[in-house]
Parts: sequence; structure tokens; C-alpha cells
Amino acid sequence: MHKPLLETVAGLRQATPPLWIMRQAGRYLPEYREVRARAGSFLELCYNPELAAEVTLQPLRRFDLDAAILFSDILVIPDALGQTVRFEVGEGPRLEPISPEGLGKLRPDNLIPHLMPVLETLQRVKSALAPEKTLIGFCGSPWTIATYMIAGQGSTDQAAARIFALTQPDAFKHLIDILVEASIAYLVAQLRAGADVVQLFESWALNLDEVSFRAQVIEPNRRIVAGVRAEVPGARIIGFPRGAAGMIGEYVAATGVDALGLDYAMPVGFAGKLLPQGLPVQGNLDPIRLLAGGAQMERRIDEILEGFANRPHIFNLGHGILPETPIAHVDQLVARVKGRN
Amino acid sequence: MHKPLLETVAGLRQATPPLWIMRQAGRYLPEYREVRARAGSFLELCYNPELAAEVTLQPLRRFDLDAAILFSDILVIPDALGQTVRFEVGEGPRLEPISPEGLGKLRPDNLIPHLMPVLETLQRVKSALAPEKTLIGFCGSPWTIATYMIAGQGSTDQAAARIFALTQPDAFKHLIDILVEASIAYLVAQLRAGADVVQLFESWALNLDEVSFRAQVIEPNRRIVAGVRAEVPGARIIGFPRGAAGMIGEYVAATGVDALGLDYAMPVGFAGKLLPQGLPVQGNLDPIRLLAGGAQMERRIDEILEGFANRPHIFNLGHGILPETPIAHVDQLVARVKGRN
Repeated sequence: MHKPLLETVAGLRQATPPLWIMRQAGRYLPEYREVRARAGSFLELCYNPELAAEVTLQPLRRFDLDAAILFSDILVIPDALGQTVRFEVGEGPRLEPISPEGLGKLRPDNLIPHLMPVLETLQRVKSALAPEKTLIGFCGSPWTIATYMIAGQGSTDQAAARIFALTQPDAFKHLIDILVEASIAYLVAQLRAGADVVQLFESWALNLDEVSFRAQVIEPNRRIVAGVRAEVPGARIIGFPRGAAGMIGEYVAATGVDALGLDYAMPVGFAGKLLPQGLPVQGNLDPIRLLAGGAQMERRIDEILEGFANRPHIFNLGHGILPETPIAHVDQLVARVKGRN
Repeated sequence: MHKPLLETVAGLRQATPPLWIMRQAGRYLPEYREVRARAGSFLELCYNPELAAEVTLQPLRRFDLDAAILFSDILVIPDALGQTVRFEVGEGPRLEPISPEGLGKLRPDNLIPHLMPVLETLQRVKSALAPEKTLIGFCGSPWTIATYMIAGQGSTDQAAARIFALTQPDAFKHLIDILVEASIAYLVAQLRAGADVVQLFESWALNLDEVSFRAQVIEPNRRIVAGVRAEVPGARIIGFPRGAAGMIGEYVAATGVDALGLDYAMPVGFAGKLLPQGLPVQGNLDPIRLLAGGAQMERRIDEILEGFANRPHIFNLGHGILPETPIAHVDQLVARVKGRN
């Protein structure tokens, strides 16, 4: 069966770009909030295959989207490795910060058994999903996960992890090695459970100089791509190094990802010049423009569509949809991309 | 008298790059902490010409730096315009968030009278500074100032200002107009009080798409450069749009700044290719590398020096020095840049 989004990742340009929305299963949807309210904690929702599959499918019932993306969180990996992870309402994630000595307590052997409910979610979604829809799995990339594991929470500048990486290079390398292996195992399991394509979320690629970017982003992402393809030949992988800016060309060439997600700060024409001809790209509307809606949003959608018209393009936001976004604006976005207004 | 740093801004490459350090007057220095402790609030220190001049000069007594930079803060502009600004210890700045209705209460006529102590600081530093040293003045650029005025504090993604700009464009334009005029008046006064060069700190340029970057960063910065030069012909101006990434070429061409400050995420070779030949650049060591010190820092210093060897280059960090930085590491940095080890 023809899956336009998967074909785009594979390099086949579609006349109408396929579309999904980062964090499309989320708080802007009342039906999500309803499920979330009866699911217990956020992680309990991630580990409840029935409810997680339900929220994964919700946005496709409302909108003409071309993909479902697994409802989960990038921090299930440290949770599965045995680090304490909690989600405080309105506060974001809180982890017991890891020390060099604490690395030995991580339990890589526990990873896949712990994540079985997530794999069951994928199986459930797969069996319910229309055949022309693409199922996207994902994980957080090692550097991004490490920033949370070391700081114990999100931060503006990832200073704790950056200091750790420079001052305790051996321990940091050990942590990255654990995360690379965990990512490979987890993504391979996702592909075997039904994911058509997987995305690597390197959400905090933006505060690294080029030397650290090569060491902490490019090299681990390259190893994951190679490791996944060694187990699942031909596996389709989207890289999303948010804030990679001047490093995107090198990232694509070195990692071998099939397609590149672009954040909204990446100028369209500039990306076009930096990237190899024919490379599939995904993005990159600013979620604030979707929140605000109206003519400014439609103008920007048109600019993005025109800017990437000469290459395979998956339309998406350049970052996750904001919880306050009106649903009518999402309708307006979908209609505009699909050429119906 | 020969001022190597000013000459570099003017386009004359020096055999040894001149050097200053962002936030060189700051908490990593015990002599700064001593003055800070007896100055009252942070803003009281900014408005005390005797003490502010003293902390401005302190780093030049310890290190072989080529410039003094006015000790002040980018938020003196909203404070001078009448918005309530406080600095909470360990918390960063807190402002009474401004609403569209509140714009009418801002007092542009109050700006220069309120900032007279800052201008006196410049006069004091000028008269005490060795003639080969360059005196740098500065202000925050309008977008960056607006993000604080609207959110009331710093934020990871500047969402409040980005939403304000898209949903209340007329009020936002009015605010930017006020800030452009205030910046011109303030920088002109700084140049007349003795600053040899001024720097525009656009510290939060990193979360804007290209359309918003042009409207909120490039256009206001362009107006400031033109407005300052209309009053002070030949005024030397350094632009520092942190996170501008793919937009740096357009920023330089459109604003007409003499020199461009580069943040540490900007790859050296990439910047070299994007920027016009001969354009002076400033930067861009990651402050974390200075904090960590040692061989990794020296390697990176050498890479930066070599990467910009073919153009006028002012060595600097790519962001402010961290308070925990050991002074011995700063000595190591200065010696390396000055070619003495």
C-alpha cells in the first residue's frame, strides 16, 4: 500500500507534501486531556498500551494527517535503565541526577523488558492504522538524554552536561556508549513492532561548539543509524538535530540519516543551499505561528512549501505544537498544506 | 595612539588578535565580589559611577586585555523608561511585565537623564584607561530587551514576546520603535562620553524564524546603526546576534555593522565561508571550555585563531564568562592568545 510519508522519507517527492505535527497527540486536544486525566501519572500513560495507543490515534481522527507517531517520551530510556524519572505537573521532568559513580548502577539488561508496554502500543496502533498512514517511532538521542540525566531536569543552556563532558570525559563517554546501545536496541524493537520509520530527537543540539557537536551529536547519531541498519537492513531514519544550524550538512553526510527534520529557526533557502539535492526534509513552521493562526500563518506555510518544492518534503512544525493552540488553527494548517484553501 | 582592538573593528587585521572577555568584570573575580558586596543592589552598582568604573577597570589590572567594557546591564533601558526592574539574587532579572496598554506609560524623555550615571562611568573609565586600550560601550538590542519587558524575566524560548509580536503587531511595533529610538540616543551619548566602539547585544536572536528575524532583529538593528551614524559619523559598531546562525550573512549586509560577534555554536570554517572577506569577527570560545581549562581549551583556542587568521579577528568567548571560572584558566587563555605559551 502506498504510504506517502514513508515514500517521502525514502526520497520520493510527493505532489502534495505529507504532513504530521510534532506532539500531535497532546494537550491542545480535549480528547487527549480526557484520557490523560484518568491515566494516573504521565509515565503511567506512556506505559499503558491501551491508552497510549488511543491518544496516538486521536489526532488522525480529527485531522487529515499522514502519520501517527508513537505516544511516549524521550525519558523512558533513563527510566528503563533504572534512573528515577518523574514528571511534575507544570514543571517538566525531574530525574535523580546521575554521577560518574552512579553509571555502574544503570541496568541496560532491563531496558527492553521495561519498554515492552511501549512496543505493545506500537503493535496496537499498527493494527488499527489505515494502511496509507505511516507509523513513526522515536527515541531521544544520547546527548539530549544525557543532558537530562546529568542535570536532573531541562535547562536553558545544558551547562551541567557540557561541564561533565569536558571535565569527566571517560565517564561521559561511558554514559554515551550506554545510551547508544540502548537507542539501537530500542529502535530496532520499535521497527520490529511495526514502526515504518523512526526519528532521532536531538532536541538540545543548539548549545555545542563544533568540536562538541561532532563528538556528542554526530558520532553517537552515526553509530545509532549504523547499528539499527545492521539489525534492520534498509531501516528508514529521520534525524532532528534541533539548533544544529551550521552543522546540518555535516550531520547529514556523517550520520547517513534518510531525512532531516529542520527547526523553525532554519531559513528555508539557506537549508536548501546547504543540503544535498534530493535530500528529504521535514519542517519547519514556527509553532507560535500556528498558535496565532490567520493570514501570517498561511503566508509562512506557502513560503515553506515553495522553498522545499524541489525536493522530497514532509510538512511539519519546527518544534512541538503548543498546548494553547486552537484546534481551528490546526484545521487551517492542514487545509493549507493539502491545497484545499 | 594605536588601539589594536579599535583598529581591528575598523578592518585592520593585527598580527596578534586583540582580546577581551564577555562579562570580564564579574563574579569570577574576588575584587568584583568585594565591590559588589558593598554596592547595595545590582542596579545600584550599575548607577554608581565610582564603583562601576572601578569594576570596569578591575579585569585590565589582572589580565593583558585590549579593551574595557562598560560595567552595566542591558536592562537599564527599560528601567530608565520607567518599567520596574529588579535583580533577584540567584534568580536573574524580574520586571513588571508590560501590556499593550502599558506602553503609553513608558517615558522616553526620562531615558538620558536617568542614565547620566552610566555616562559618567564611561567618562571616569576613559580618563583612567591606558591610551592603547579600547573602551567599549553597549546596549541590548530591541528584540532582546522586549523579550524581558514582555515576559517580565528571561525564558528558554521567548514565547511570550513571540506570541505578543504575532498577535498584537501594532503594539509590538510601537514598543520596538520606542526601543530603537532609546538605543540610538543611549549609544550616541555613550560615544560622546568616551566609548570608542559600541556593541549591540542581541542575546536572544536564536528562537526566531527567518521572517521574524528580519522584522525583529535585522530591521531594528539596521535602524540603530544608521541612527547612531547619523549623529556620530563613522561610529564603530559591533553586532552580536547570538544564535543567528544561518542569518549572519544577511544580518551583516543589511545592518551595516563594522564587525560581527560570533557565539560559540557557530562553526569557524562555516562562518568564514558565509561572511564577506575582510569582515572583522569577534569570538568564539565556549565559556565551558574556559571553565574546564587545560589542553582541550588550548587546542580550541588554536583552532579559532587559525580559522580566523585570514581576517581581522578579536578573540573573545562566544558567551559570557561563567562565575565559577578559575582565574588561572583566564591567565592560560590570555597567554595562549597572546602567543606566550
